[in-house]
Amino acid sequence: MSPKHLEGQRISWQDTGVVSTMNSPFCKLKPIPVRAVRMNPGFWKPRIDTIAIVTLKKQMQEMRKSGVLDNFMRVYGKLDAEFQGFYFAESDLYKWIEAASWILQVEELPEIEKMIKEAIDIIQPAQGDDGYLNTYFQKERAKKRWTDLDRTHELYCAGHLFQAAVAHHRSTGSDRLLNIARKYADYICDMFGSGKKEAHPGHPEVEMGLIELYRETGVRRYLDTAGFFIDHVGGKEMREILGHAVRALYFCSGMTDYYIETGNQAYLDALESLWKSMTEQKMYVTGAVGGRAYSESFGREFELPNENSYAETCAAIASAFWNWRMLAINGEARFADLVELTLYNSILSGISLDGEKYFYVNPHISNGRATGDPWYAHERRGVPTRQGWFKCACCPPNIARMFASLPGYFYSTNDEGIWVHLYDNNVFQWHLPDGTRFSLSQKTNYPRDGRVEIEVSSQAEKEFSIYLRIPGWCQKAFVTVEGKPMPDTPQSGSYYEIKRSWKKKKSILLEMTMPSVLMISNPMAAENRSSAAVKRGPIVYCFEGVDNPGISARQAKLKVDCKDPTRNLKAKFYPDLLKGVTAITSEGMVPVGNWGLLYRPFETEPIKTKPVILRAIPYYAWDNRGCSEMSVWLPYKLTKR
Amino acid sequence: MSPKHLEGQRISWQDTGVVSTMNSPFCKLKPIPVRAVRMNPGFWKPRIDTIAIVTLKKQMQEMRKSGVLDNFMRVYGKLDAEFQGFYFAESDLYKWIEAASWILQVEELPEIEKMIKEAIDIIQPAQGDDGYLNTYFQKERAKKRWTDLDRTHELYCAGHLFQAAVAHHRSTGSDRLLNIARKYADYICDMFGSGKKEAHPGHPEVEMGLIELYRETGVRRYLDTAGFFIDHVGGKEMREILGHAVRALYFCSGMTDYYIETGNQAYLDALESLWKSMTEQKMYVTGAVGGRAYSESFGREFELPNENSYAETCAAIASAFWNWRMLAINGEARFADLVELTLYNSILSGISLDGEKYFYVNPHISNGRATGDPWYAHERRGVPTRQGWFKCACCPPNIARMFASLPGYFYSTNDEGIWVHLYDNNVFQWHLPDGTRFSLSQKTNYPRDGRVEIEVSSQAEKEFSIYLRIPGWCQKAFVTVEGKPMPDTPQSGSYYEIKRSWKKKKSILLEMTMPSVLMISNPMAAENRSSAAVKRGPIVYCFEGVDNPGISARQAKLKVDCKDPTRNLKAKFYPDLLKGVTAITSEGMVPVGNWGLLYRPFETEPIKTKPVILRAIPYYAWDNRGCSEMSVWLPYKLTKR
Repeated sequence: MSPKHLEGQRISWQDTGVVSTMNSPFCKLKPIPVRAVRMNPGFWKPRIDTIAIVTLKKQMQEMRKSGVLDNFMRVYGKLDAEFQGFYFAESDLYKWIEAASWILQVEELPEIEKMIKEAIDIIQPAQGDDGYLNTYFQKERAKKRWTDLDRTHELYCAGHLFQAAVAHHRSTGSDRLLNIARKYADYICDMFGSGKKEAHPGHPEVEMGLIELYRETGVRRYLDTAGFFIDHVGGKEMREILGHAVRALYFCSGMTDYYIETGNQAYLDALESLWKSMTEQKMYVTGAVGGRAYSESFGREFELPNENSYAETCAAIASAFWNWRMLAINGEARFADLVELTLYNSILSGISLDGEKYFYVNPHISNGRATGDPWYAHERRGVPTRQGWFKCACCPPNIARMFASLPGYFYSTNDEGIWVHLYDNNVFQWHLPDGTRFSLSQKTNYPRDGRVEIEVSSQAEKEFSIYLRIPGWCQKAFVTVEGKPMPDTPQSGSYYEIKRSWKKKKSILLEMTMPSVLMISNPMAAENRSSAAVKRGPIVYCFEGVDNPGISARQAKLKVDCKDPTRNLKAKFYPDLLKGVTAITSEGMVPVGNWGLLYRPFETEPIKTKPVILRAIPYYAWDNRGCSEMSVWLPYKLTKR
Repeated sequence: MSPKHLEGQRISWQDTGVVSTMNSPFCKLKPIPVRAVRMNPGFWKPRIDTIAIVTLKKQMQEMRKSGVLDNFMRVYGKLDAEFQGFYFAESDLYKWIEAASWILQVEELPEIEKMIKEAIDIIQPAQGDDGYLNTYFQKERAKKRWTDLDRTHELYCAGHLFQAAVAHHRSTGSDRLLNIARKYADYICDMFGSGKKEAHPGHPEVEMGLIELYRETGVRRYLDTAGFFIDHVGGKEMREILGHAVRALYFCSGMTDYYIETGNQAYLDALESLWKSMTEQKMYVTGAVGGRAYSESFGREFELPNENSYAETCAAIASAFWNWRMLAINGEARFADLVELTLYNSILSGISLDGEKYFYVNPHISNGRATGDPWYAHERRGVPTRQGWFKCACCPPNIARMFASLPGYFYSTNDEGIWVHLYDNNVFQWHLPDGTRFSLSQKTNYPRDGRVEIEVSSQAEKEFSIYLRIPGWCQKAFVTVEGKPMPDTPQSGSYYEIKRSWKKKKSILLEMTMPSVLMISNPMAAENRSSAAVKRGPIVYCFEGVDNPGISARQAKLKVDCKDPTRNLKAKFYPDLLKGVTAITSEGMVPVGNWGLLYRPFETEPIKTKPVILRAIPYYAWDNRGCSEMSVWLPYKLTKR
């Protein structure tokens, strides 16, 4: 049931990944479909299963409760009620459909399929004859259509509809939502552009949506309209990453998509500057971004408050989206490093281990008290703890769509071979662009340790390469093929190439050393000065009160041997702790007594301390055992043995 | 021309200070009038003169331009125009009248007197027959009166009217504005209270205003209504200083006034807790408060961002108001220390040296660039530099009333004698509560150095004490009376008593050592970790780009000798720099090359540095030579000789 417009083309809708860069000559890597990767028990499978079994159903319940579906029914008079929630409420449903669609590539889930069908049943009749579809601006606000693009997310909602429709089509082959999307996109393309309505959305998203719709349908004007929006903002001239973090990074993702389809170097120049600005000046050690609560935005350079970090879960997801697209262009490992960093830390922190609660805001220090502080949580409940839902519920379905599609992020292919980006147990069965079928399997405890056993076999006698990502965090890696150690040293932060024929199944062993390390920060980031964060492999740690009874996690200091800084760090795996984590302990010290006044002359006798053992757990797992103090960074004291 | 209600009382209106605590049995100290102190050339006189000659006139121009006076005229139909500015615009005029009134005690200024008269001419006809007076809620919004106490500052404006009226009466003896205030206060007391309208203002201020009006008129219900507002918020139960900083500290000032008049210990217990909470957890080294831009508020404990510090000038002024009232209760030097700290640093920073530009927000680090950053400046012009005026212009007239009344803050008296709080050249001629007249003069270069020559003589042969404040910052002080060194050592942070008969003029020499010191901060204040601030006497320093060409003031480190931390600090007075300042240099270092990535493992080779000489100027004087980088805190590196 290949869609008509693609008939006769080499690529069918079934071949495309989450972001389809299949046809681009400006892209080194080609995506693979979610369903090409079968996850096996390991780190990610239980989390993806939780999305499928728990999270998606709970989310649909929450959306029903909060009126997201009712908002559609009132448009066509099936319900007599007020509009409920924020003006962009429907985007949550679209994101949910996207998530639910991707999960159908992971597993057969008739119940989820039925829920998607019911959702589309509810959406469809709301579409106007002209194609317009926005539950907030239909009915009583019909005359306000397109009057407040800056603030009311009209095009943002459209973009999410388009992404959902593409996902639904790619996962089920059904044209149903895709046709709704096309009709609306046609209308938008009629409305906006040079000589027509010349404006751009205040909250980007439609750019990605339109371009993916272009990729799915071949309708060129979808791409052109996206380009119009990007140019209207002046995307090509941007150099410093600024403003609302989710908006900025959705925009960057859309602009990357546009570069990928057009190859105009000016966009790539802007994107490289923006990436440098983000990663060198405005990113947390966890990969989180958008530290400033004011406007949910990127702050100025090095503005990375820890206790007040906004670090919206959606912003970390948006960073992963953007880096995934950048990675496709040149296959540079620095982008995959960031995808991995955000996945294991700033995105995963956004959902509880049971899949039912979320962080909207992700602090990097918490006093662990329910202070009624308006800083924490989007709902201003003032408690630095996960919530079951939010009035502005953008993050929960965003997490769902990220993890539901995660298998599609493990690999890419191209004419040269197979690119391995992420490590976990799975079997990847797919084909190279020329049709050569292959099978690649991973066996590993990653990220518990850095040993990955890979088996590769291909259908035909053909030489091609396996590119193994050597993460930037990995200082030493060893590769063995068929029991034979490779003579050259894999470079940290690059892809290591193994080229040969894989007709006869071959085994690869990748061994990445994974010591516990102490990360330090550019001293311009004032809050991290003279402090260190514990990291092991891709995982950033935190000190949580519950693991450090009787110690203030925010007042402790790490004891750091000046000759051998990580000497005091001891890692141990606990299978029953937080669904299985490696905890890390360090020698440290806490103050005895009170500092008294806030300030004192340097000369005054320093406060006494006593030695303690400090225990850290992965940052993503904090606040799963009740609310207590937490800190990612601890000041350190250099000692001599 | 003593007002009737005070006839027969021992105290006349002419005797009262800025805050009159004359009649309170719960107060150790009695205020003195502004006019009792004649400032001589020194640190403060030129600044007070600038207020009188430049600032007040410019401010009246700005208020005329922005429609504050028009808002009154439109009420009684003299002008047909829209209401202009914020709903609390008129409070600026009241604060201006207060400032202008106090300055009349400093100097005869017919032009200012005329401006006050004209302002009252404009205000008077706007008052309703019932006494109500609020230009925003008169006319078209008449029916909304008292409907939004939480947000619209109705009672706040009333409070400023009352304070202005009291100041005007105390400075000129005129009942004119006082009668307007009394009529309005009578109406407010009719409206609010137990069994009447039971509510409280969202923005405190009326409490102080009503109590001062009570002190001026003797009308008890003004005090009672203030008490009603304080109790309605639950003032007695407060323990942690929270919320909007100016509101919180105006409230504390009002509650202190209420304690002073009632002696109910529960209020004092709350005030002591709140003071501890502020000074031990929520105050900048400059005395600035309200670090959080979100809601212009106190953050949680130790939330003291430097580059993002909100630190509104009005909040520092409010802190001085509160500490001045607390000081009166027991005469404890810790409160006077804070009055001094805020005056020389966080208040004085709010106005440019020429008296024409202001900081609303006071950063403690600045990147010195006009970035369009919404964080800086109330107007969101995004430039970390002083502005000529603000749409919300609360700070400029607040600075004016603070400095216009400053002579009144130098001394107090009581039955035991004379309390000397502040040091600068002046002559203080006044009398003890029993009528004993005296003259006290100061000759000093303070705060350039800590030597103060004092001469005291009294009219009558009577033994009484001179209490000299030994500042908390002063580690060693020496007192000599009539050339004879006192045998006991003055205690830092206390008042040193010298008791004798002063009938024959006597000389006192106070010598306070004033070395340059490095202040360090409780490490819970994350941004100050491993950093130091330079301080000398009451003055906090900062490193400004203009004094450190070619060096990034935010990247530099201080070199600190671990055996002798202040060894590298050299202070030198420059009479022509910034109207005369002591600049301080230190050995230091700056990084060579780029840090590159934000984060790196501890083990990596540290970045190379080169030695430099760093130069600091008083924080109050920054941004008077154009916009450049600035930092109060610099990280330090301990070195061994």
